[in-house]
Amino acid sequence: MKVAGKHYRSIWTDADKESVHVIDQARLPYVFETLKLDTVEAVADAVTTMRVRGAPLIGVASAFGIALAVSKDPSDASISKASKLLRATRPTAVNLSWAIGRMREKLKDVKRVDRAAAAWKEAQAIADEDVALNEAIGRHGASLLDREHAALGRPVNILTHCNAGWIATVDWGTVTAPLFMAHDRGIPIHVWVDETRPRNQGLLTAWELAAHGVPHTLIVDNAGGHLMQTKQVDLVLVGADRVTRRGDVANKIGTYLKALAARDNSIPFYVAVPTPSIDWTIEDGIEEITIEQRPESEVRIVRGLDAKGRPAEVTIAAEDTPVANPAFDVTPHDLVTGIITEKGIARASERELLAFWPKSEQSKAYLT
Amino acid sequence: MKVAGKHYRSIWTDADKESVHVIDQARLPYVFETLKLDTVEAVADAVTTMRVRGAPLIGVASAFGIALAVSKDPSDASISKASKLLRATRPTAVNLSWAIGRMREKLKDVKRVDRAAAAWKEAQAIADEDVALNEAIGRHGASLLDREHAALGRPVNILTHCNAGWIATVDWGTVTAPLFMAHDRGIPIHVWVDETRPRNQGLLTAWELAAHGVPHTLIVDNAGGHLMQTKQVDLVLVGADRVTRRGDVANKIGTYLKALAARDNSIPFYVAVPTPSIDWTIEDGIEEITIEQRPESEVRIVRGLDAKGRPAEVTIAAEDTPVANPAFDVTPHDLVTGIITEKGIARASERELLAFWPKSEQSKAYLT
Repeated sequence: MKVAGKHYRSIWTDADKESVHVIDQARLPYVFETLKLDTVEAVADAVTTMRVRGAPLIGVASAFGIALAVSKDPSDASISKASKLLRATRPTAVNLSWAIGRMREKLKDVKRVDRAAAAWKEAQAIADEDVALNEAIGRHGASLLDREHAALGRPVNILTHCNAGWIATVDWGTVTAPLFMAHDRGIPIHVWVDETRPRNQGLLTAWELAAHGVPHTLIVDNAGGHLMQTKQVDLVLVGADRVTRRGDVANKIGTYLKALAARDNSIPFYVAVPTPSIDWTIEDGIEEITIEQRPESEVRIVRGLDAKGRPAEVTIAAEDTPVANPAFDVTPHDLVTGIITEKGIARASERELLAFWPKSEQSKAYLT
Repeated sequence: MKVAGKHYRSIWTDADKESVHVIDQARLPYVFETLKLDTVEAVADAVTTMRVRGAPLIGVASAFGIALAVSKDPSDASISKASKLLRATRPTAVNLSWAIGRMREKLKDVKRVDRAAAAWKEAQAIADEDVALNEAIGRHGASLLDREHAALGRPVNILTHCNAGWIATVDWGTVTAPLFMAHDRGIPIHVWVDETRPRNQGLLTAWELAAHGVPHTLIVDNAGGHLMQTKQVDLVLVGADRVTRRGDVANKIGTYLKALAARDNSIPFYVAVPTPSIDWTIEDGIEEITIEQRPESEVRIVRGLDAKGRPAEVTIAAEDTPVANPAFDVTPHDLVTGIITEKGIARASERELLAFWPKSEQSKAYLT
């Protein structure tokens, strides 16, 4: 998307295919700076230090990491070493593991002399597929916002929670895709952005919207109910870490509270998510999804800028205050108006969602 | 209540009635320090700088301020001057104005020679009445927690939002009175404390509970819904800035979201409030209560301690990020299980609440 009028992806290559460029996300939302990475070691380091973050982006970055390694040395040993290095950066990241596997599968029967070209091509294909996926979510979501605008006859007020933005993907993002696309099409929108404690990822959403020029207002997580009560919200749009086959939604802690307020005020509540994030093996999200307890430091410490504009942090509660930090909650499907995917919008019901489950994968599931 | 094992009120006098002592609340929750105030000017300064804060406490402090002035000079001119000085500290504080008025009314027909003694006695009476009011709320609330404990057969998990604590009153507090009293009676309780952005007043609640030894855990405002979904909350207890005659509750922003989650999970939702905070003139809180928009800086800036343990602040969102900061929301009466007052517990209905409206005031209201 755009930053100060110029179009960016979150990762891109040099014309000569000797390096990749990324945005230094560790410095956002306060400083926008790009990094040039010209070795697989540099890519691994950027992922480890969270300069490159977001599950889809990490996958794509690791694919480019393999390409950088192959450019220098196309041997099997070089590919193995690069894979091992990249996998160690974020051991639990599924996209990372998947992308490395796909690169290795693609390269294994390619002659050494052709491997570099094949590697860059495959990495670029993975990046382009991610863009297409989110762009498709954006098309379906923007049409929804267009209809909403036509019905209201005034700008559409959307409330969002956390960050499922373009910088975590290659472009567009999931939740942000409909917002950017609606804005680009001239559909007037305004976005209420929850700061999203404890990690304040809403600040990244606010930065993305500001950089692309989308009208928005930052609020504390407590404010959404009042805004809905007083008819200042027309639609809620959030992302998801995982959706069950009947449409229960696991997302950043606090999402459920907004869904309750949306229902109480007859406001539609939508979830934007790619179909690979739908877990067809589970039905009841509250019973079956284990909620991660994250480090207490996320609650105790708040990051920002000091009086001189330098990155700084304050401790709001010291070690002697007991703290709990559940990272996600589950919004039951009956609070969800619709799930916006790259394949279209479905109601949060098993009947409608199953239409998005590829037949090939269904048969595999039944066999196991 | 207790701080490090010693009983405190938030304001107390020297034996020789030449000074009053208060807790320096501007330094809480990080530093506990008391201040000795021996002139009306010192009292006014402590209120202006918010070292002394909380509507009930400000009223009591201003009464003692008048007593300090009268001790030095019992003339009418001295009382007038002291009143004017104190009123200017927080011009919108109703309790302050009420307490000064009561002191002047009491002193006006007293001979000069007897005024100092009368002033100290009246100020002390105002303080003691505040303690009795909150203690009565505590008795009714603690009985409720006792019944809850008997029914559960295990510690009662209570979730609270914001701070309606003892340091804002002379002792006990409103929401905290039932908590302290239950704890003192040996009823096992554990309190989930919302940090309560934007101003993080939950940190004061956590400090009060820790200082008195009540088990508690600090959480972000987003966490309560998940805790209720997973049966980790037995009862929600919050305060109120204003309650309508049918029981709609205006309280710190975010209260309404917790009430929705309580209803969705069949958890009782109680409001602790003295009857003078019930506004008999209004019925529909959402329609009739204007919600104050507070300074954006409360959202932009977070206070805490720096790495060296010194008070510090960080700016999480700079001036170029649009911000909104509604300070309160309204919880409709049908989400409220009961209102705990000094006169007993009522359902949130006009029929039950009207029993708490003194007949004398009702007749006055009908005459106007």
